[in-house]
Amino acid sequence: MAEAFTLWFTGITHSGKSTIGSAVGDALRARGLSVELLDSARIRAYTNRGLGFTKREIEINVLRLGYECLLLNRNGVVAIVMAVSPYRDARDQVRRQIPRFVEVYCRCPLDVLRRRDTSELFARAERGEVEHLAGVNAPYEEPLHAEIVLDTDKLTADQAARQVLARLEELGHIERVEPATYTAEEEEMIRQRLQNMGYL
Amino acid sequence: MAEAFTLWFTGITHSGKSTIGSAVGDALRARGLSVELLDSARIRAYTNRGLGFTKREIEINVLRLGYECLLLNRNGVVAIVMAVSPYRDARDQVRRQIPRFVEVYCRCPLDVLRRRDTSELFARAERGEVEHLAGVNAPYEEPLHAEIVLDTDKLTADQAARQVLARLEELGHIERVEPATYTAEEEEMIRQRLQNMGYL
Repeated sequence: MAEAFTLWFTGITHSGKSTIGSAVGDALRARGLSVELLDSARIRAYTNRGLGFTKREIEINVLRLGYECLLLNRNGVVAIVMAVSPYRDARDQVRRQIPRFVEVYCRCPLDVLRRRDTSELFARAERGEVEHLAGVNAPYEEPLHAEIVLDTDKLTADQAARQVLARLEELGHIERVEPATYTAEEEEMIRQRLQNMGYL
Repeated sequence: MAEAFTLWFTGITHSGKSTIGSAVGDALRARGLSVELLDSARIRAYTNRGLGFTKREIEINVLRLGYECLLLNRNGVVAIVMAVSPYRDARDQVRRQIPRFVEVYCRCPLDVLRRRDTSELFARAERGEVEHLAGVNAPYEEPLHAEIVLDTDKLTADQAARQVLARLEELGHIERVEPATYTAEEEEMIRQRLQNMGYL
């Protein structure tokens, strides 16, 4: 059995991290793996005296997420992180600590993100009413050596999730299954998840 | 098989948290459990852009430790936290989130702690050269309802570890073993650990 690994989804808000990360998580569970999803925003909400959003605070949060992945991985649990994690240096620090680290960059042009943004977050950030929106009025540093780059303006979530699974097979982190094998159970889980989220 | 639980060692610096926590961890591993030790100071060092020591920052650290325990417990791993965690409210917030939470208060009079303190930390704090030393020049709020209170000025580390194991049996978190059974393997592990640390 292959050892547990960390899938680290990075990208600007609305780039598809959570949708794709959750779909991949379901598919991995369907293959019998133990999986934990670490959603940066949900963890910040859990620790409700919360960290702020200065560069230092964001880095502390990212390093702590990395530590949590390490704890999970060494106990046989796959960790899937979905976090903007805008600073390259912090992500690379985590990479150095985790034996099987797979960075997944959800890349999407700003104008597409803006169209997806029903809550007007981007518009409000552009008007200065919202602070710290990575890619708009705060830095977002693209990965230079991500194991996986997903152009989420061109891929459906389903296609993106398949691409991640294929790359995980290629990297030897999960066992290769025949395409015919994985259409059955997995496809249904992914389909249902996407339907529940209103994507189908 | 009983479900995984969290053992939370709280107490002032030098009160015995790490020594006793490590010995208990070894004993639990000898019983076949998966165990992670979460040492607050080591985690702070890992996330090296570190949190500070304001009340808010200490609380964030404690809540985050609690979150890590939750992640581990739900994947079948016993979590042992060794952290001063001086604020009662933060510890109680964690208690409310974790299904099987066992607070272990390492209680020790200040004058005994001072005698143990070869690094002069207490003296330096009293002279104001060191800040944020809980119990000296920063608050330490004693637990009111700890599941286990260890008077570490009166107990050897070995006795204290046995007391914790007995209480865990009583609480139903681990299976009861006959005293005759657990002298063999466990005792040797505890003894070795204490010897390595220079306590025997």
